[in-house]
Amino acid sequence: MQSVEQHRSEFPRLSNYFYFNFGGQGPLPQSAFSAITETYQQLDSRGCFSVSTNDWIKQEVLELRKSLAELLKVSAANMVITENVTAGCNIALWGIDWKAGDRILLSDCEHPGVIATAQEIARRFQVELAFCPIRETLNHGDPVAVVEEHLTSKTRLLIISHLLWNTGAVLPLAEISRLCHERPQPVQVLVDAAQSVGSLPLDLNKIAVDYYAFTGHKWLCGPAGVGGLYIRPEIFEQLRPTFIGWRGINQDHAGNPISWKHNGERFEVATSAFPQYQGLRAAITFHQCFGSQEERYQQICQQSQYLWQQLTKLERVDCLKKTPPAAGLVSFRVNSKISHKVFVEKLESRGFLLRTLASVDCIRACTHYFTLKSEIDALVEAIDKLSH
Amino acid sequence: MQSVEQHRSEFPRLSNYFYFNFGGQGPLPQSAFSAITETYQQLDSRGCFSVSTNDWIKQEVLELRKSLAELLKVSAANMVITENVTAGCNIALWGIDWKAGDRILLSDCEHPGVIATAQEIARRFQVELAFCPIRETLNHGDPVAVVEEHLTSKTRLLIISHLLWNTGAVLPLAEISRLCHERPQPVQVLVDAAQSVGSLPLDLNKIAVDYYAFTGHKWLCGPAGVGGLYIRPEIFEQLRPTFIGWRGINQDHAGNPISWKHNGERFEVATSAFPQYQGLRAAITFHQCFGSQEERYQQICQQSQYLWQQLTKLERVDCLKKTPPAAGLVSFRVNSKISHKVFVEKLESRGFLLRTLASVDCIRACTHYFTLKSEIDALVEAIDKLSH
Repeated sequence: MQSVEQHRSEFPRLSNYFYFNFGGQGPLPQSAFSAITETYQQLDSRGCFSVSTNDWIKQEVLELRKSLAELLKVSAANMVITENVTAGCNIALWGIDWKAGDRILLSDCEHPGVIATAQEIARRFQVELAFCPIRETLNHGDPVAVVEEHLTSKTRLLIISHLLWNTGAVLPLAEISRLCHERPQPVQVLVDAAQSVGSLPLDLNKIAVDYYAFTGHKWLCGPAGVGGLYIRPEIFEQLRPTFIGWRGINQDHAGNPISWKHNGERFEVATSAFPQYQGLRAAITFHQCFGSQEERYQQICQQSQYLWQQLTKLERVDCLKKTPPAAGLVSFRVNSKISHKVFVEKLESRGFLLRTLASVDCIRACTHYFTLKSEIDALVEAIDKLSH
Repeated sequence: MQSVEQHRSEFPRLSNYFYFNFGGQGPLPQSAFSAITETYQQLDSRGCFSVSTNDWIKQEVLELRKSLAELLKVSAANMVITENVTAGCNIALWGIDWKAGDRILLSDCEHPGVIATAQEIARRFQVELAFCPIRETLNHGDPVAVVEEHLTSKTRLLIISHLLWNTGAVLPLAEISRLCHERPQPVQVLVDAAQSVGSLPLDLNKIAVDYYAFTGHKWLCGPAGVGGLYIRPEIFEQLRPTFIGWRGINQDHAGNPISWKHNGERFEVATSAFPQYQGLRAAITFHQCFGSQEERYQQICQQSQYLWQQLTKLERVDCLKKTPPAAGLVSFRVNSKISHKVFVEKLESRGFLLRTLASVDCIRACTHYFTLKSEIDALVEAIDKLSH
């Protein structure tokens, strides 16, 4: 296992600023950048479209599907490569055979893009939407019980995040999923895993949700534009492809589409930014050099808990979570004369990169496993100064 | 206007092989590659996610939307940035308010991915599909008349390519579109423009089709993973977004989705390979240094006509088109003991990169405006030798 300092040498520009936006986008390690540029050069050297180049790309795409599957401890056959988290959620949402009167239950902490998709599904298919108050279970109450209370005999799908992007809470997904699947009318579970992949240790066999949509460009530090969707084998054949292209179909001798591909490719469309696929694979390999998912997770929590602890000492700062964080997101309010928006802009002008959130009016700081204690100390000092 | 030789210096590796697959993918000019790597470096220097970086990205995305709109001589408000041609076709196909009994008419030269999407639409909404024999009008007959014969009072959409990917025919799209729009029940026209953008001079106001879906990675020589969809202003508000994300929606103060964006962004989803957007813009600029769309088109035709002429002289080669090509695609059959597949593999092992097609069993060679006469001569000689 490399030391954090050794490992950070792969991010030579990370010392240009104090970076706390891993939940927005992760910085690209040098090796991932090289993988991208080398792929472009290789395509250029061999000819970007030829029989042998196309065979090579096909193999390499398969390798990415395998890498992503390994991260989640699932079979590559159930992995779909997507452009981003939202695309994965859309594949699931539009692939279900909706009937008028069906109901979708969402947590009240979901991303606006996913909510908007569910709203359009509701409009088109006369499906009802309901929201359950998960946010308020951050410090008291049981999210499993909240979900249970809001399921009805009409509910067909629950949409929920694994790691809430606003409050930083980690939800007990295995229990929620079991609850949903054991209903007399089983409820499918679609998970927005934007914040969990690359930060939490994962075993999707144990969690057993139906759809797990994620991206490579946040905690995995891959390039923007590549993500994935895991589909549980038990429901794979039920889900219908919606956005469709050559990647998802088998063709007969005359080029007519005759059937769907048998694995996750079924839900992939057409030509994508292929060199970025290589970038994501390199980023995944980079993290593995540091340690196991579990070790990286422990390190993330060590850093976020230190940040949380220091923030709770500040007079004018109020952390949303009253107990130490269980992942890399620390959300807080500042009681000062300026809005959170202006506060973040002022921090940014001092070199500290954070973001505000709207759905809980707060500021969010993310720590990764390679965040330094000195960076956290500097951030806490800057927040303290600015808040007075 | 630069000479072809000057211009080709931007493709230092194009002399590694004889490249005739522009209709599959175009080589990336050096300036586009640099734009991509510089964008990654800039993101790294400034922090890949911050208030100022996100503002910058937003501006640059707008610039790409403008560039693409200028190419087609339309307003940027009606341009959607997509991942590829097929994604653009899917946006149109899934956004129409289908009723059972509606009919889609496709030409018999459409791409399998688009056919498969239309088939899934047909299954889900009890829509009927019909195909019209456009292919056989390559040398005789009138494609406008063929379309007219196959429209019925139930037809709501025609799916047709501008430049047929198999035979290389350029269709009279303005006439076809007029015919469709002047029906008592107007028929919308969805165009697969995979082969036409970057090769034909375009003015979408004159052509006036409803949807024009294209990619940046073929004739425009941009990176894979970026394309566009033009939507005619008259029908823009009728088309419903299907795959939805944060890029397409307006949010209220609390982050709730409240309305669609007013322009093409409405149909964009979420985080994409943004550095590739810069690559495509650079590729477009690169072509403009050589000359106008019209000048490049004339040059493309000069090259393809020379290739066609030389091929027609070969004893065992049969060009599908009996008159000189009107664009950069030259499709031909070889009467030899080996299949076209093996023929192309043998050509490839000799450094000539071409492809086979399935829907018309043939080989396709593409010439761009920067293809050299010496490359064409070498190809013709290689084909002649191999066919004996």
